[in-house]
Amino acid sequence: MGGPMAKNLLTNGHKLLVNDVVSASVKELQNEGADVGDNPADIASKTSVIITMLPSSPNVSEVYLGKNGIIEAVQEGSLLIDSSTINPEVAKEVASKAEEKGATYLDAPVSGGVIASQNGTLSFLVGGSKTGFERAKPILECMGQNIFHCGETATGQAVKICNNLLLAISMIGTSEAMNLGQNLGLDPKLLAEVISKSTGRCWSSDLYNPCPGVLENVPSSNNYQGGFGTALMTKDLGLAQEAATGTKSATPLGSVAHQIYRIMCNRGYGHLDFSSAYKFIKEDE
Amino acid sequence: MGGPMAKNLLTNGHKLLVNDVVSASVKELQNEGADVGDNPADIASKTSVIITMLPSSPNVSEVYLGKNGIIEAVQEGSLLIDSSTINPEVAKEVASKAEEKGATYLDAPVSGGVIASQNGTLSFLVGGSKTGFERAKPILECMGQNIFHCGETATGQAVKICNNLLLAISMIGTSEAMNLGQNLGLDPKLLAEVISKSTGRCWSSDLYNPCPGVLENVPSSNNYQGGFGTALMTKDLGLAQEAATGTKSATPLGSVAHQIYRIMCNRGYGHLDFSSAYKFIKEDE
Amino acid sequence: MGGPMAKNLLTNGHKLLVNDVVSASVKELQNEGADVGDNPADIASKTSVIITMLPSSPNVSEVYLGKNGIIEAVQEGSLLIDSSTINPEVAKEVASKAEEKGATYLDAPVSGGVIASQNGTLSFLVGGSKTGFERAKPILECMGQNIFHCGETATGQAVKICNNLLLAISMIGTSEAMNLGQNLGLDPKLLAEVISKSTGRCWSSDLYNPCPGVLENVPSSNNYQGGFGTALMTKDLGLAQEAATGTKSATPLGSVAHQIYRIMCNRGYGHLDFSSAYKFIKEDE
Amino acid sequence: MGGPMAKNLLTNGHKLLVNDVVSASVKELQNEGADVGDNPADIASKTSVIITMLPSSPNVSEVYLGKNGIIEAVQEGSLLIDSSTINPEVAKEVASKAEEKGATYLDAPVSGGVIASQNGTLSFLVGGSKTGFERAKPILECMGQNIFHCGETATGQAVKICNNLLLAISMIGTSEAMNLGQNLGLDPKLLAEVISKSTGRCWSSDLYNPCPGVLENVPSSNNYQGGFGTALMTKDLGLAQEAATGTKSATPLGSVAHQIYRIMCNRGYGHLDFSSAYKFIKEDE
Repeated sequence: MGGPMAKNLLTNGHKLLVNDVVSASVKELQNEGADVGDNPADIASKTSVIITMLPSSPNVSEVYLGKNGIIEAVQEGSLLIDSSTINPEVAKEVASKAEEKGATYLDAPVSGGVIASQNGTLSFLVGGSKTGFERAKPILECMGQNIFHCGETATGQAVKICNNLLLAISMIGTSEAMNLGQNLGLDPKLLAEVISKSTGRCWSSDLYNPCPGVLENVPSSNNYQGGFGTALMTKDLGLAQEAATGTKSATPLGSVAHQIYRIMCNRGYGHLDFSSAYKFIKEDE
Repeated sequence: MGGPMAKNLLTNGHKLLVNDVVSASVKELQNEGADVGDNPADIASKTSVIITMLPSSPNVSEVYLGKNGIIEAVQEGSLLIDSSTINPEVAKEVASKAEEKGATYLDAPVSGGVIASQNGTLSFLVGGSKTGFERAKPILECMGQNIFHCGETATGQAVKICNNLLLAISMIGTSEAMNLGQNLGLDPKLLAEVISKSTGRCWSSDLYNPCPGVLENVPSSNNYQGGFGTALMTKDLGLAQEAATGTKSATPLGSVAHQIYRIMCNRGYGHLDFSSAYKFIKEDE
Repeated sequence: MGGPMAKNLLTNGHKLLVNDVVSASVKELQNEGADVGDNPADIASKTSVIITMLPSSPNVSEVYLGKNGIIEAVQEGSLLIDSSTINPEVAKEVASKAEEKGATYLDAPVSGGVIASQNGTLSFLVGGSKTGFERAKPILECMGQNIFHCGETATGQAVKICNNLLLAISMIGTSEAMNLGQNLGLDPKLLAEVISKSTGRCWSSDLYNPCPGVLENVPSSNNYQGGFGTALMTKDLGLAQEAATGTKSATPLGSVAHQIYRIMCNRGYGHLDFSSAYKFIKEDE
Repeated sequence: MGGPMAKNLLTNGHKLLVNDVVSASVKELQNEGADVGDNPADIASKTSVIITMLPSSPNVSEVYLGKNGIIEAVQEGSLLIDSSTINPEVAKEVASKAEEKGATYLDAPVSGGVIASQNGTLSFLVGGSKTGFERAKPILECMGQNIFHCGETATGQAVKICNNLLLAISMIGTSEAMNLGQNLGLDPKLLAEVISKSTGRCWSSDLYNPCPGVLENVPSSNNYQGGFGTALMTKDLGLAQEAATGTKSATPLGSVAHQIYRIMCNRGYGHLDFSSAYKFIKEDE
């Protein structure tokens, strides 16, 4: 996700200082004109706006709070924007450490997947102070279309978790409906079209249909390559589960969805797009 | 549902001959200019286009195939349109009996609920012959906005079942997300707005949000009165379950959704709109 | 199932007249001394006690009510014992047809699986009149250990459905616990032993543990060969689902269990013993 | 739980020094001859064997690692036995702090509930060193019947989590079967008796049947008073969920069970025995 986001910043005339554990990713951006930092602390000491995009909570803890991490060297007045999807509690911890150093931390997870990332049409779900949000907005607009201020620190994460909980459920629901419909003799394109104009309609059925051949240019029509991996969705549902247990919120379908994606991961679907739920549910693999 | 549909036919200049087990419903239409038939057979003997809207499969069997039923007296060449949501197997049986009498049967269940019924903006999901469909279309357009030909006999029912399966799942998913979000400190209107522009968006979140106060003029903002009753949704999920078991289709979330609405019915939510899933899931009743 | 049951009758000195669509099964019994009937009606015309063991409701309808079926030729006063697991409604229908002919029908499904069938230690769950039950009891005791009178017609099926619903759930639950325990570092034999002396104990954990190597002489220790096939369990859960929907009974875990076995069937586990739920849930196939 | 355990130690001739946040509990033991310590540290400084029984992980962290906690004052060579059900990771942390002070920590959660606690028939599931276990065994035998050594530190917690996961599932499964059976016309006592001799049998059906009137002296026959509270079972399932997500273990039924108990808590069943799942599932409350 980070690569296309960085390219959109470059395209919009921003200067970049980049770092990644994958050296190929760094080289690719270097070729496009970015400079390279030694490590997070090095970058923090040289710039006043830092954007991070990392796989999970422990990575965020390490990059911000660890040795050679951002907080170690962050300058007073810096703006820190973390676009990772992580545990809201970790976001709160990093925000508090940033504040101690006089810096502003925003949690700003994204919605839309790799394609929206490439097209600069991501949604950013931003948690943190209003002034921090206003400062970040023009930068985020280089990479995204909808920039939402969700409230205080960690509310960006909260919205992301809730959206993905619903997305995860809708995708399996769409898969069940598309599979059942075909088993009842329906043409999948017709079924998808009718649903898209009826009360069952959702993003998963309209724009990202999991049944191969219904839509072009979606992962399901490309052997579930690209898109948003099942393993990542499973991780997000783990965060939702943790948040639900912590707040004593009931999420019956979310929990079953979590388990279905978990079983999919255990059976080799982890690297396929999460719309492969259709493939998992369908009779013939 | 049948009442507003009949009124829209009257408004569009059609003459009506009506019958219902609830005499108040008949009287209401009589006041608007409809004539009254003694029973289904009586109506079948006097008209060439018949529209039925009944609660469940046994009622359809009775009204069509029972004593004083439609098939008993149907005229050759008549067009029979059944807008009930029923077991596709029953639709096939009635269609076959109609064919024996030289009549054409279409299954044409609707989507959109009472409000769409009143506004004449229903979707009709029509199964049956192409010529039957073309003949029915102008009539259905008096009552609905989207008239879909779904394929052969019973495909209208199949599409309806699939749509409502997905709708039932999305509504509970939306309820879980809206409840979790608030427990994480989010404002429900903001959450609904962001979801409506993100990948979690669905009809249940955008146009029929189950959280009271988010949208006006939806059942959730009116104590879950009006709309589509939980008992009816539970019935539709029973049909989905039957169809899924019959075709050996897996519907894991659909099955859990069925059970949740079942438990809701058992606890007094049967007459509330199905968006009361939110109320059921939330902590304080 | 029918084969070993018939052999136990022969062993106990009964004379048999047999019929099966699989000619090898007939031949095997012929070699052990059984006579062969042409078809169900032929057998019904020559004997006064008939025992049937068939795969599903439609087979029972056909063998009893179809052409050359039992009811066609049944003698007044005959005793009909059906040990198939079927829809209670079908049992009631057959019982009523038998009664019209002056014969007594008992539904008498079994519990215990192939091994109990071979050892003559089956449980028989009998529904029907008390006098019918008393007449059947000495015959059933040749094949089983526990002969229960469950009440009126179809109560044998009802008990069977309830028992297998609970069994299906317990087996998946045991599989989850055994798998989680190992992932937490526990020795599976120790875990099974402690559970067997604690509140989690159940038949699935104590006598039929789904984790290979914990018990000898169970399907899990023989690549899930033999035992009670996943496809049959899925069929029984379909009956449970139908009964639950018909009586508006909530079965949340039963429904999820049904879907899990359904997905297993769709992925090639249908012929494996149902304890292969463990294999399905575990990480490495 | 702690009260009856302490009384059984007194009965067996042990001297006790006790502490509890609930002063009435302390007073009750004082009346039976126990001495009272000021706080955990005070007790740790005066005794060499300490047994704790606390509601949840944070309480254990506080009592062992907090101010005036056990570790602060523990003597070299002391034996620390924690019978709380907690997160295995917390057990590992406390064990490591104890080891630094030269003390031995065992996790020793119990199974059997309040009744077994009173009767001295608890099961103890012990994790930690073999020598620690041998030292603890005679003490634990004053309070329990089955003392299991489950392996290294935290394996007691792991076994407890797995057992209760299965128990939670079996109880809901039993409730579904008992309710469905009655709706199908079965006598609940007969159904329970047949299941207890069939493959569906489990502790929940045989010894703790959730249907009122089937067994005497169980919570279901006493308005679900006493026993093991739904809120506590929900907490244990939260631990199971955390352990499952952490080890990427699929627990589909466990997750649904967790959600059902969660909804029960949210609807006022938290203080009822967990067998009130039957009451929750049944039609008429």
